[in-house]
Amino acid sequence: MSPHRFYERTVGTETLFSGRVVRLERLTVELPDGSRSTREVVRHPGAVAVLAEPRPGYLLLVEQYRKGPEQALLEIPAGKLDPGESPERCALRELAEETGYQAAGVAKVCEFFSTPGFSDEKVHLFVASGLVPGRSHPDADEWLAVHELPQQEVARKLWSGELRDAKTIIAVQWWLLRANGGADGGGCR
Amino acid sequence: MSPHRFYERTVGTETLFSGRVVRLERLTVELPDGSRSTREVVRHPGAVAVLAEPRPGYLLLVEQYRKGPEQALLEIPAGKLDPGESPERCALRELAEETGYQAAGVAKVCEFFSTPGFSDEKVHLFVASGLVPGRSHPDADEWLAVHELPQQEVARKLWSGELRDAKTIIAVQWWLLRANGGADGGGCR
Repeated sequence: MSPHRFYERTVGTETLFSGRVVRLERLTVELPDGSRSTREVVRHPGAVAVLAEPRPGYLLLVEQYRKGPEQALLEIPAGKLDPGESPERCALRELAEETGYQAAGVAKVCEFFSTPGFSDEKVHLFVASGLVPGRSHPDADEWLAVHELPQQEVARKLWSGELRDAKTIIAVQWWLLRANGGADGGGCR
Repeated sequence: MSPHRFYERTVGTETLFSGRVVRLERLTVELPDGSRSTREVVRHPGAVAVLAEPRPGYLLLVEQYRKGPEQALLEIPAGKLDPGESPERCALRELAEETGYQAAGVAKVCEFFSTPGFSDEKVHLFVASGLVPGRSHPDADEWLAVHELPQQEVARKLWSGELRDAKTIIAVQWWLLRANGGADGGGCR
């Protein structure tokens, strides 16, 4: 397969920082006209997010404090991929850890890049089925509260601007489009 | 206002790297139980994205190579805030730079955090009105192609998984919900 007409060939890679979660790289690239520029890329292991209905028409949301935004956000259950872990397995694990719910299965809704201008983070969005309640066991430094909200209230929070997390907005809008009959087939893919 | 019950107080800030676009910080935080942990935060100036219909039922999309994802993506016009620039002004500027279209105005659809687990990047999503075509003038190191696609084709690209940029999926889903009569009022806010 020939490269894209705007392909930027990497001619140099400098690792600026390797952290607990992210790795920051500065890439020197050759542009389509042969000139050079630099790109800062935040490398991320990838993540999953799970749309889970504990009963029909209700959604599981997790409330937690987010240090970057410096505020508490309502988000669907989500988390980072462990090394070698499949997105499906990660989705089942994160759902159970954060909410206590065990799912019989998860089906892919779509994949997306959360902020492709400066990161390679890819989010795999799933919808869970066959939920059975259990006991949550978040990480030691993870403080959160789980909410089960009816679709009408979730929609109200969407339109009022109370939902401010991108992956959660994508999931909720998909859920509403599906309810409207607008999401044909399995979703985004 | 009392802090959120899961508030994480910053007790130390270390700047690990300051780049052209992002600044990476490692924060030491005090958790609600008094124990400590660290958070890596990628500081970002904030961004805008613009849903623009050059004619009714058509959407402006920009195709460009994204170095992090290492692939070309179809995205709505978008860009970073300049220092001191208002989101509205930035939206008009980026739309004109990337597509050539001048808008009479922009209205806020919603704001969201693209990836709150490791960054403070906030995206302001607007819908533009009163478009007049002109000549685009992207940055020197920005290679892109502008597409005007009908809603049916955009929807097909959404459901087939061809749209892989989070802000673009949010905008297109909102556009479809609004077409379905599902987006009451001005949108997310």
